[in-house]
Amino acid sequence: MIRFSVMYPSTEGATFDYEYYRNQHVPLAVKTWGLDGAEIDRGVDGPYVAAVHFKFESLDALGAAMSAAGTGDVLADVANYTSIAPVLQTSEIVD
Amino acid sequence: MIRFSVMYPSTEGATFDYEYYRNQHVPLAVKTWGLDGAEIDRGVDGPYVAAVHFKFESLDALGAAMSAAGTGDVLADVANYTSIAPVLQTSEIVD
Repeated sequence: MIRFSVMYPSTEGATFDYEYYRNQHVPLAVKTWGLDGAEIDRGVDGPYVAAVHFKFESLDALGAAMSAAGTGDVLADVANYTSIAPVLQTSEIVD
Repeated sequence: MIRFSVMYPSTEGATFDYEYYRNQHVPLAVKTWGLDGAEIDRGVDGPYVAAVHFKFESLDALGAAMSAAGTGDVLADVANYTSIAPVLQTSEIVD
């Protein structure tokens, strides 16, 4: 199983609309990529103010999602909730 | 629910013993803190070569774990698998 995490580092002067992120953006990504769901984090302590973790069956499935027709719309939607440049992490869940 | 993530950034010249991490270190942390388990990531792409995600019922439960008697042993064990200084992130799982 592959975890694809998108993490938003705390950034001076930037804002983050958690409501839009939870109610509009992440559901759009989940629907576009045909996933069952995703886990959304709101930072309490540490470098990131927010994050989302998607799970994919394989690296091939993640690659297919990234090149899917609707993915451009998902990326374009980021500007609607934050100006923070996210950090992307792809990992294999080993346990 | 609280997610406590410990993430190891890719570091020039550093090593990371995944087998020890998975078979010794994370089980020690899980046992010390009385958790059901944890999710272990091996980095494929992005800034982190490894990570673990623990879930706690509350910030109070996380605080109690951090100040538990065995936590010093857990931290001292880090030197047995890596010289990388981890990044710590505490988040509320909102969805």
